Amino acid sequence: MKNFTHRNLLSMNDLSVEDISLILDTAESLKTISRRDIKKVPTLRGKSVVNFFYEPSTRTRTSFEIAAKRLSADTFSLSASGSSFVKGETLLDTGKNLQAMRPDLIVIRHSSSGAPHLLARSLDVSIINAGDGINEHPSQSLLDLYTIREKKGTLQGLQISIIGDIAHSRVARSDIIGLKKCGSKVTVCGPPTMIPMDIEDMGVDVVYDPREAVRGKDVVILLRIQLERQNKTLFPSLREYASFYGLNTDVMKNAKKDVIIMHPGPMNRGVEISSDVADGASSVILEQVENGVAVRMALLYLLIGGAKGGNVN
Amino acid sequence: MKNFTHRNLLSMNDLSVEDISLILDTAESLKTISRRDIKKVPTLRGKSVVNFFYEPSTRTRTSFEIAAKRLSADTFSLSASGSSFVKGETLLDTGKNLQAMRPDLIVIRHSSSGAPHLLARSLDVSIINAGDGINEHPSQSLLDLYTIREKKGTLQGLQISIIGDIAHSRVARSDIIGLKKCGSKVTVCGPPTMIPMDIEDMGVDVVYDPREAVRGKDVVILLRIQLERQNKTLFPSLREYASFYGLNTDVMKNAKKDVIIMHPGPMNRGVEISSDVADGASSVILEQVENGVAVRMALLYLLIGGAKGGNVN
Amino acid sequence: MKNFTHRNLLSMNDLSVEDISLILDTAESLKTISRRDIKKVPTLRGKSVVNFFYEPSTRTRTSFEIAAKRLSADTFSLSASGSSFVKGETLLDTGKNLQAMRPDLIVIRHSSSGAPHLLARSLDVSIINAGDGINEHPSQSLLDLYTIREKKGTLQGLQISIIGDIAHSRVARSDIIGLKKCGSKVTVCGPPTMIPMDIEDMGVDVVYDPREAVRGKDVVILLRIQLERQNKTLFPSLREYASFYGLNTDVMKNAKKDVIIMHPGPMNRGVEISSDVADGASSVILEQVENGVAVRMALLYLLIGGAKGGNVN
Repeated sequence: MKNFTHRNLLSMNDLSVEDISLILDTAESLKTISRRDIKKVPTLRGKSVVNFFYEPSTRTRTSFEIAAKRLSADTFSLSASGSSFVKGETLLDTGKNLQAMRPDLIVIRHSSSGAPHLLARSLDVSIINAGDGINEHPSQSLLDLYTIREKKGTLQGLQISIIGDIAHSRVARSDIIGLKKCGSKVTVCGPPTMIPMDIEDMGVDVVYDPREAVRGKDVVILLRIQLERQNKTLFPSLREYASFYGLNTDVMKNAKKDVIIMHPGPMNRGVEISSDVADGASSVILEQVENGVAVRMALLYLLIGGAKGGNVN
Repeated sequence: MKNFTHRNLLSMNDLSVEDISLILDTAESLKTISRRDIKKVPTLRGKSVVNFFYEPSTRTRTSFEIAAKRLSADTFSLSASGSSFVKGETLLDTGKNLQAMRPDLIVIRHSSSGAPHLLARSLDVSIINAGDGINEHPSQSLLDLYTIREKKGTLQGLQISIIGDIAHSRVARSDIIGLKKCGSKVTVCGPPTMIPMDIEDMGVDVVYDPREAVRGKDVVILLRIQLERQNKTLFPSLREYASFYGLNTDVMKNAKKDVIIMHPGPMNRGVEISSDVADGASSVILEQVENGVAVRMALLYLLIGGAKGGNVN
Repeated sequence: MKNFTHRNLLSMNDLSVEDISLILDTAESLKTISRRDIKKVPTLRGKSVVNFFYEPSTRTRTSFEIAAKRLSADTFSLSASGSSFVKGETLLDTGKNLQAMRPDLIVIRHSSSGAPHLLARSLDVSIINAGDGINEHPSQSLLDLYTIREKKGTLQGLQISIIGDIAHSRVARSDIIGLKKCGSKVTVCGPPTMIPMDIEDMGVDVVYDPREAVRGKDVVILLRIQLERQNKTLFPSLREYASFYGLNTDVMKNAKKDVIIMHPGPMNRGVEISSDVADGASSVILEQVENGVAVRMALLYLLIGGAKGGNVN
């Protein structure tokens, strides 16, 4: 077995195909723990995991916290709101202060792209990027890869579309990197204002019609319309977005029978996805959430559990 | 021993007298744990309890969290404020997402009556209603029943008054249902604007003079005046409420020597209760708080601990 | 070995030199736990520690929480913001309610001087003052004493300066009491508006020039400029404060080679301390943070761990 030699998880770019396989295989063996009567193993007993979320998040934070506690790690939650920690203090000072309390790993979400990388360069403690600005969200991407591999048996040679605000989505970015690396073919779709100019450089196709985006695909990944992350209005109204780019039964008529529909949540029902699609037989959205816990358990285990072969990031 | 066959605790209406006895007996046997040097038993090791509070609460949330941890369960606290979990997401989607992370039980407080019932209908995980709008607060009622039974030896044939904003109190509602079921006679008292029109249908007497409400009673339960839960002003001023409906030593002259005074907290001293009554020999208000932990330990144990006879809600 | 007979930690005034030695010695033996692979000992298993912070704090709260969990205690965090606990409820009622849930120790931070003392007078549970208004912050002082003793081998006969807003600093107050008690000579320095009139009564020297404050000293403790704790402007601008009282390499030229520089954090870089001093060889600021966890572990252990000789506060 290949060793996992990384200290941090900052970007999908840092992972080799073998790394990704190792993470997904580890997640697969850990997934059953959450379905047991006693959902806890002593693997990370005596380890300290800090969840440091500068942006509000409950879903991802809770997923990491559950993952850590199921492995018996102690968890500490810090939020930036109302925190004296960050008052007039630089991110790096905050990070160094946290590190001085000797945690084993810091999970950080930050509104600035590159914030986790800044910490990782200066600290010895392990860092997981739980979303940095519009840059990346690698643990979300890994749970997406896990879910696709579980459903399709492989990631090699799949046809996958991502529909939504590609330009402002850290999920899209991490997914594209991960999926391409594992041999999937990726198409992105959205209003022209939401497609980055240089997106073709990432090796993806661009289409502007969701019918076309869905046609013949094995997987369709929807993105949440996040008005809060946009500096200006990128489309006239939610209703307009829904009617042109929302995934509904009408658009789904163009899809293969065995397509799976994914969404990182939280869903805006009636905007990017209609309720019948969200709750339909093709949707694996809730399985993504369950797999998220397993993948995060795997990440914690590989990054801070047991003897490491090396410490190369 | 009768088995506890419920999956959820949503309403006092769902519990039989035998259910209530089983909960109170279980609480009695668990109460001593909190007074030990080592306040922890391994009963719920590896279980996950989520405290999901859409309304701010520290008292009830802390009581559930302490109860869970004393039984060795892992706890996860989610609040709605600043939470991306609930941003644009339906309650049901939030619940389904939480369930996908495989907790054993969700404790929910919500400003909408019926919110816990909605979750319980759609989810498989156990749900405890920790207060839903002006509807019910069954765990508070059970700790009230526990305290009364502990002090009076029985619930059968007692004379009990509830004084305050009956119309807007989920505590009053749950208490009335529970007390009537267990054979107590209940009188309610408050300004006419705070008494629901159809309250007699619940089998209670109504009086408008606190002296009368107190006279001959075994138990007097005061309610917190909650301006935040009222849509309009129901009485001219706090001072006026205090002088007409506040429980003070003057009103207490009408009470039996062995009456016990209860309050769900937090108290507005000088409004619904005067300090000499709150701190007097008849007050069992702090014992209610201690019993609250024991009752919640019993609920967690009965709902998710050990082998269950069945799963009928 | 002398026994630690206190139930509470409210003020440095309550501790004898022997008490302080016992705390620092205990911290020294516990410090290594945080550097182990498995950072956890079962010493306080089954104990409940409540962190009740009326003022926002992440650093101190996290330090106490990590300390408690490394000793296997269960922790419960309560904050005043948005908490129904404190709505219309007196501090004493809140404290009594908390106590009724049978925690072993309450760590409290409050904006009012004397709040922890009020609780301690009325409750049986152990209380640690984690900062009360502008009065005291004894656990910060103890970690400062620990750090100085570790670096200098003794506290006896040292020359120590404290620079900053002496009048509004609870850290300064606790440090002065503790350092004087242990035989150090203390000088304070700051703008005249920030030096209390009667400060000489505490047995300290006053200087107004940071060059003089630094000259010949073994230790220089900087204080954070906390605009939020001042009722009026005590100096014209941050820039002016920095140029007159900030510790920078220029001022440091007056210092001994082996001086150590301390700061309770969070630092305002460029205001009370320049970055080259903060990150320089003399700075022990991050060691203070690490020692803080060890000292708080010692306090928890001595206050609620094992058999106590007595319960005199």
